[in-house]
Amino acid sequence: MYSHKLLKPDGRQLTLYSRSAIAEDIAPPSPSNEPVRANPHLRWHPLRGEWVAYASHRQGRTFMPPPEYNPLAPTTNPEFPTELPQGKYDVAVFDNRFPSMTPAAQNPPQSIVETLPANGACEVVVFTQDPRASLGSLELEHLDLLLQVWGDRARVLGEQSQIQYVLPFENRGVEVGVTLHHPHGQIYAYPFIPPVPARMLEQERRFYREYQKSLLADLIEKEIADDKRLIYRDEYAIAFVPVCARYPYEVWVAPIQAAATFCDLTPEQRSGLAKALKTVALKYDGLWNRPFPYLMAWFSAPTDGKAHPEAHLHAEFYPPYRTSDKLKYLAGTELAGGMFANDALPEEKAKELQAVAINLQTPISI
Amino acid sequence: MYSHKLLKPDGRQLTLYSRSAIAEDIAPPSPSNEPVRANPHLRWHPLRGEWVAYASHRQGRTFMPPPEYNPLAPTTNPEFPTELPQGKYDVAVFDNRFPSMTPAAQNPPQSIVETLPANGACEVVVFTQDPRASLGSLELEHLDLLLQVWGDRARVLGEQSQIQYVLPFENRGVEVGVTLHHPHGQIYAYPFIPPVPARMLEQERRFYREYQKSLLADLIEKEIADDKRLIYRDEYAIAFVPVCARYPYEVWVAPIQAAATFCDLTPEQRSGLAKALKTVALKYDGLWNRPFPYLMAWFSAPTDGKAHPEAHLHAEFYPPYRTSDKLKYLAGTELAGGMFANDALPEEKAKELQAVAINLQTPISI
Repeated sequence: MYSHKLLKPDGRQLTLYSRSAIAEDIAPPSPSNEPVRANPHLRWHPLRGEWVAYASHRQGRTFMPPPEYNPLAPTTNPEFPTELPQGKYDVAVFDNRFPSMTPAAQNPPQSIVETLPANGACEVVVFTQDPRASLGSLELEHLDLLLQVWGDRARVLGEQSQIQYVLPFENRGVEVGVTLHHPHGQIYAYPFIPPVPARMLEQERRFYREYQKSLLADLIEKEIADDKRLIYRDEYAIAFVPVCARYPYEVWVAPIQAAATFCDLTPEQRSGLAKALKTVALKYDGLWNRPFPYLMAWFSAPTDGKAHPEAHLHAEFYPPYRTSDKLKYLAGTELAGGMFANDALPEEKAKELQAVAINLQTPISI
Repeated sequence: MYSHKLLKPDGRQLTLYSRSAIAEDIAPPSPSNEPVRANPHLRWHPLRGEWVAYASHRQGRTFMPPPEYNPLAPTTNPEFPTELPQGKYDVAVFDNRFPSMTPAAQNPPQSIVETLPANGACEVVVFTQDPRASLGSLELEHLDLLLQVWGDRARVLGEQSQIQYVLPFENRGVEVGVTLHHPHGQIYAYPFIPPVPARMLEQERRFYREYQKSLLADLIEKEIADDKRLIYRDEYAIAFVPVCARYPYEVWVAPIQAAATFCDLTPEQRSGLAKALKTVALKYDGLWNRPFPYLMAWFSAPTDGKAHPEAHLHAEFYPPYRTSDKLKYLAGTELAGGMFANDALPEEKAKELQAVAINLQTPISI
């Protein structure tokens, strides 16, 4: 993997990643030259015992780009610079212009609850230069690179002393609020371990203490033996609708043997994960022959400087659809109670996905 | 409060509630005479350490009602019975025809994770016979009755030995997936304390142990002193945008002095809560002069037979809008991380709601 670090005119960082060498003379553009002045803060939620981030962003200067303007594509019209330069590279990562957390945050307002500067980081990960691509259409080697990029970002961000947890995720589709269709994800780096991974690590830790084994690896063994909900499987990686799916088409992707972080993956595991990811993405898009919206996130060990033998890197996909024309709305029991009610059995949804024929070698665009 | 318990032809219970006596000869209808055969089950989610409910419902007989058919209105055409009878009553509660949990559930499937019959209960609460009413348009005395009804249901359900927590909620608006616009809510009664209230009680318990005081009462005192986010306040009840709002227009409604459950409210507190509720509902609907969607839920003490001096009954409203034309989508950081990022300051949103003029005495319909 080659990488090249650049500074945008507005002070934000941009890193280009490639499978081949990257030219040295690339100039990084930005849609705006004004420095980012975001100053988000955190407030403590006493009843839930969690932090909430507040960011109110200035609107910036008037910017009326042409309708075909895509801020995540390489700049073609210098009059309307995008976030990315022309040049040969595969994946690009840059600081979010409207961050919910930033290392620069300071002087949080005084409040009746505890406040802190939101000293995390928010990055945008552009998966490819091709605006019509998707996780399913990218070559396996490209996905392998993307896994290395997530690993590099988790390492770089995690090395900052205030960062305790790095969460790479992709929100895909208007149904989850995404208006930019260029394939991309985000990375949130938190100055604390956020509630969901914290809960997960607590469960994993308890199991590890008792059995000296990864809780997820234990579940994966049982999923393999049960053989009802598997979507992809090779010697190193697996994808399955979990027996306890909260969303009808929920899928998890994981190395079969526990690896705590992206950087702990063997090349074989990474290659297996690339195939598993591509399989899931192709099956999703093939199910109704249209781009399938989802939220996908990678859970790993915290970057809190402690050992986490219990952690087992994996991705979880949360698709918002129950059927091809019905969304699963999160309402009373899910958002206020925290108990998910699923009107589909994971076994049935897995069968639907299993039945979708795909070809890992042929790029498919939808 | 008068109440009258009836059995529907399909075996479901219906209870009518009224401020005046209810006729004895009311026959309870049902859209279908087929007995409800739902058999939902729970599966343990090992990574999150929580239960997930699974219910796959048969479609039932073909039923082609006329376009004006409203299953929550009193039956007018006997050929197309609704859920409710004609007659003089204010509020009606009946067993959900498609429950995610039911006392009748049994024999859960064997699985690679622990399973249980979903022995909870799911009820529908019809707030009024008027299909065009809303929490904001109902008379204060009617809202007072509704608070008593929630209390009666929480008591009746909570007395069942397997029920550990009762959560009354209202999902309002197509934005949160509601297609029936007749004013109504639901009640979920769980055979365990669900994750969100469990977390809340843990925070409340810790504070109570240290200070012998309600955590929410402590926050309310600080909110009153801060005087920046109050929406309604009298001697007994309060409504405010909490300092730690996770949704831009989030509002909490609570008695100022802690009451653990609806049944622990004094008549003065209940009357104050009715005014607070009506104020919030009217301000929401008045903000953009259209019905304002939200999820509203009531948190209280569990019904697990233990003492809960830490519990403080209150409602939380979670509206899905950020601005009049932009939804707040829950995505990566909220659903996978569990950290909410709010791009509005609670102080600013409170000001918007404070500025909406309302009249508690005049019924308003939108």
